[in-house]
Amino acid sequence: MQHPENNEEYKGLTVNSGVEQPAIVNPYLQRGRFARHRLTVDDYVQGILKGNVTMLGQAVTLVESTNPQHQQLAQEVIEKCLPYSGKSVRIGISGVPGAGKSTSIDEFGVHVLERTGGKLAVLAIDPSSEKTKGSILGDKTRMEKLSVHPDSFIRPSPSAGSLGGVARKTRETIILCEAAGFDKIFVETVGVGQSETACHSMVDFFLLIQLAGTGDELQGIKRGIMEMADGIVINKCDGDNVEPCQLAARQFRNALHLFPAPESGWLPKVLCYSGFYGLGIKEVWDMIFEYVDFVKGNGYFEHRRAEQAKYWMYESINEQLRNGFYNNETIAALLPRAERAVLDGQQTSFIAAKHLLDTYFGLLK
Amino acid sequence: MQHPENNEEYKGLTVNSGVEQPAIVNPYLQRGRFARHRLTVDDYVQGILKGNVTMLGQAVTLVESTNPQHQQLAQEVIEKCLPYSGKSVRIGISGVPGAGKSTSIDEFGVHVLERTGGKLAVLAIDPSSEKTKGSILGDKTRMEKLSVHPDSFIRPSPSAGSLGGVARKTRETIILCEAAGFDKIFVETVGVGQSETACHSMVDFFLLIQLAGTGDELQGIKRGIMEMADGIVINKCDGDNVEPCQLAARQFRNALHLFPAPESGWLPKVLCYSGFYGLGIKEVWDMIFEYVDFVKGNGYFEHRRAEQAKYWMYESINEQLRNGFYNNETIAALLPRAERAVLDGQQTSFIAAKHLLDTYFGLLK
Repeated sequence: MQHPENNEEYKGLTVNSGVEQPAIVNPYLQRGRFARHRLTVDDYVQGILKGNVTMLGQAVTLVESTNPQHQQLAQEVIEKCLPYSGKSVRIGISGVPGAGKSTSIDEFGVHVLERTGGKLAVLAIDPSSEKTKGSILGDKTRMEKLSVHPDSFIRPSPSAGSLGGVARKTRETIILCEAAGFDKIFVETVGVGQSETACHSMVDFFLLIQLAGTGDELQGIKRGIMEMADGIVINKCDGDNVEPCQLAARQFRNALHLFPAPESGWLPKVLCYSGFYGLGIKEVWDMIFEYVDFVKGNGYFEHRRAEQAKYWMYESINEQLRNGFYNNETIAALLPRAERAVLDGQQTSFIAAKHLLDTYFGLLK
Repeated sequence: MQHPENNEEYKGLTVNSGVEQPAIVNPYLQRGRFARHRLTVDDYVQGILKGNVTMLGQAVTLVESTNPQHQQLAQEVIEKCLPYSGKSVRIGISGVPGAGKSTSIDEFGVHVLERTGGKLAVLAIDPSSEKTKGSILGDKTRMEKLSVHPDSFIRPSPSAGSLGGVARKTRETIILCEAAGFDKIFVETVGVGQSETACHSMVDFFLLIQLAGTGDELQGIKRGIMEMADGIVINKCDGDNVEPCQLAARQFRNALHLFPAPESGWLPKVLCYSGFYGLGIKEVWDMIFEYVDFVKGNGYFEHRRAEQAKYWMYESINEQLRNGFYNNETIAALLPRAERAVLDGQQTSFIAAKHLLDTYFGLLK
């Protein structure tokens, strides 16, 4: 339970420690090495507010660190950045592996930066990344253009912890990015599970990338994920694949009609495009901008953000209640034995839980 | 947050209070009215161990009650019953609304009681039942035969609280039923969401009821639910529907081959039957008994139960951590204001959560 770093008390706050995948930022923007001396909260905040991406990357590393000192520093930085956050459009992008997410994000990103200026941050939620060592955004060559674009910041998924923890870290990273002036945020997830719900809980527009199939393409994706989508886009619509894509689009449109009307009042659209050949990218963005105008007009944009904030209040509470318990040194020491006793049938799960809780609440007194 | 009953300090432990749907037990077994005087833990335990279903029903009512006094009493009863529990086969039964679950459970139940003797308890997990007022097991006429069978005990889903809470109560009810000599337990869920995961976490065999369709029947059910199934049975295989059912069975068999091999080493079977006409019921039970022999032989039966116990230890801990917080009177009083402040954008979710947690942990000192 305890992070090995915690034992090295005299270790400085070197922000790289404990993190396997540093941010992918344009290398030409990184002047010199990471500062090795202790940075203060204000150092981070000032750096972020100036749009310094190296400082932003280091602050995100603090957010992702499991070291309690780093965590506290991160929370202070976030609190100071909060008043400067919120002024972005947050777009969730999901799709099963093989749907061409990286290429698409590259094209979507370059297009919107050329079209509207501003800055783009690409983040990810992938709780499996610890196992697979970064299946998402792990390979910077997969976003060839964005990875060297001066106005982009690409960050792989936090690689440690539960989905809840990973998602919280991504949400906190959004705040830092917005404070650093990023007005467009992508949050990428693999379209296979609960990460989508977490992603949906922090974005304004949820885009689902699909592929054409043979009528059974709806099987691969869970209904619940389709229901969350504000837009579905069918990738690889080029060459011989144009007709199958248009057929798939019709099938998705039909399927969407079977779902209950979304709270936003917006009927999700289905479009075809080709990430590889850069076709139809403009139309995808037209859709997103149309959506944003629509929900800003009817008040749903603000409503959704407020509901998300409420959701995150409860998530924060629940996560911190669990952390307080599981990170308690006495509990962490007792837990393996309790687990063993339950697995061996020497103790019931209820009694084991009760003993641990009694111990914990006794310690708090 | 606080249950209204908590204010009535002098109220006796009348076990009916706070519960809307009393157990459906054979009315001929209920001699006289429910006892209105205070029953002790030993009264309950002795009654349960004697197989007294009225006493069992009252104990389950305690388990389901939100009154803290009832809860404590329930926990003591459960602890004393635990050594007598575990000796049953627990079968999860899931299927979308309309799949004919009630009729099927009626037929499955009568068949197994005739075939093997013993006693059968039918429980349910349906967190939506508060909204829908008991969509599952709500109508006792839907289990015509079992509801008047002397060896059955039918209990609707606990109707209050989160999925986690509802599921825990069902799991605790299993223990009481087993202690009362019920050697076959059905746990029914609606096949539409996370209740299946909860159900799967407490049963030995997970049976999924499906209907024949036109090739798209796989869409309605989430892949994750199919992956949990130890057996899939296609209902309404009678008359003109025999051929479509056999086609659907082939499709499900093909689909199952695409899933990773189950940890149990058991390849899930797909069978057809008719709940309404009582056709193919024996074969369904042959499958379940074959499975139980198989996993008892290879050790997976015990392994799965041990893993479930571990899972429930963590679930118990997490639920009680949350309950301790949200049921705290000070927190319950502060929460609506904090929520309002977050919704109105006056306070961020992080800071609101932090203030509430600081208050809570301050109170515990």
